Amino acid sequence: LTATTVGVFGVGAIGGSIALRARSNGARVIGSDAEPAALEQALQVGAIDAAVSERQLSAGCDVLVIAAHLEPTLREIERLAAEDSPRPVLIIDVASVKVPVVRAARGLRNFVPTHPLAGTERHGVAAARADLFLERRWAYVPAVDDELNSRAQTFIASMGARPLATSAEEHDRAVALTSHLPQIVAACYAKMLRANDGNLESFYGPVARELVRISGMGFALWREVLQANAGNIEPKLRELANELRPAADALARDIDALAPLFAEKGTES
Amino acid sequence: LTATTVGVFGVGAIGGSIALRARSNGARVIGSDAEPAALEQALQVGAIDAAVSERQLSAGCDVLVIAAHLEPTLREIERLAAEDSPRPVLIIDVASVKVPVVRAARGLRNFVPTHPLAGTERHGVAAARADLFLERRWAYVPAVDDELNSRAQTFIASMGARPLATSAEEHDRAVALTSHLPQIVAACYAKMLRANDGNLESFYGPVARELVRISGMGFALWREVLQANAGNIEPKLRELANELRPAADALARDIDALAPLFAEKGTES
Repeated sequence: LTATTVGVFGVGAIGGSIALRARSNGARVIGSDAEPAALEQALQVGAIDAAVSERQLSAGCDVLVIAAHLEPTLREIERLAAEDSPRPVLIIDVASVKVPVVRAARGLRNFVPTHPLAGTERHGVAAARADLFLERRWAYVPAVDDELNSRAQTFIASMGARPLATSAEEHDRAVALTSHLPQIVAACYAKMLRANDGNLESFYGPVARELVRISGMGFALWREVLQANAGNIEPKLRELANELRPAADALARDIDALAPLFAEKGTES
Repeated sequence: LTATTVGVFGVGAIGGSIALRARSNGARVIGSDAEPAALEQALQVGAIDAAVSERQLSAGCDVLVIAAHLEPTLREIERLAAEDSPRPVLIIDVASVKVPVVRAARGLRNFVPTHPLAGTERHGVAAARADLFLERRWAYVPAVDDELNSRAQTFIASMGARPLATSAEEHDRAVALTSHLPQIVAACYAKMLRANDGNLESFYGPVARELVRISGMGFALWREVLQANAGNIEPKLRELANELRPAADALARDIDALAPLFAEKGTES
């Protein structure tokens, strides 16, 4: 799979990182993007060998990576499914929700839904890094065809990442808790900090710093993901709010009621 | 101040890190600890030159660092205040709340309340590192005596940290938001994760990882701090819970109601 042509649809931070890594592996990389300026920049920074149109991309590559936001990902999947027979022997997406992707991709051959569990709060190919996926997990939803799964695993490993088989439903429930819920908490927390006077930044601990960092990721990036996975996120958000209130009561009335929240006892010195 | 004897009361992760750094600066370091085993370990890892009693400590050093939890810190301050005239030309504490310390220390000469904004989730002198404070802020509550403040600034700078002048009230309000609130959120969040089946850890993003990491710090370490600063933390915890509920409503009914939570718009690609 390394001595192939890799096509990248969407040359942002993720698509650009995949492109950089594929090139450093020896693959020829062609790219396509709805924004001509982004494509031009990807050429300039050496993430891709050639800029092509959407149709030239799928017709001209062996492995096709759809590295766009959710909505353009679903549209590209539908466009590809309407083609007679795709040239790529492997087509993957990298969207951060998987149930809508699996639903849209029913008619698409050679497709494996995936999600690299790595990212950056920065946008565009300027934020791309060949080592973005190094030692990170990269989830994929296995197909019926074992040969196809093997190709997906090989491609993921070629990115330096560790393949993680999952169902679309398990994936979406898990990231609701481990990624989408923290993102909303970070947004609410950062709003509180903004409303506060004074030199708070000097007092940031590591968690405050991380929450503020991801809160800067922007609604445009998150809107579709949060909407697509709202059914999993909403109950967890209410559950967390319902945990915070008794914790506030404990602070006001009985500090030791907080003890069961803490997993370990720690030591005294 | 570097060619002095530094006394460290409490040789845990913070006190041990101060001791290691002071020794690497050329100071002689003596240590005292309520737990003989901790003191023995501090000798073994080379954090201190000599292990002494509480009374020998204050009588035998030029700079005294009280690096204990809040309650033993307050007790040591009261013990020192009852002494006739302390030998140390500078006495500091490192407790993470400052209002109770300022209150307890009214009768104590040469004392400057401080708080290094650095730490580790690990306990004991084995977790000590000479570079723990490097480039980190180190808050202090200025005294009336400018000469004393200058000594505190010099000592903080000798630790590799950046001195940050603050009032005790401003400090405690700020860390309620930037440190104590995130700690309780982390505890509530980690409880939710523990209650969940399945292989969640593979799906951790950077924030989930950080929240789980600090949630392991243990109640023993946090109990006194959370109690002492409860008046500042409790309203902020309720405020956060009150932000999460409309966010959950937005997820269920109108995703665009989330937009104002996000500070920046981000870009589309």
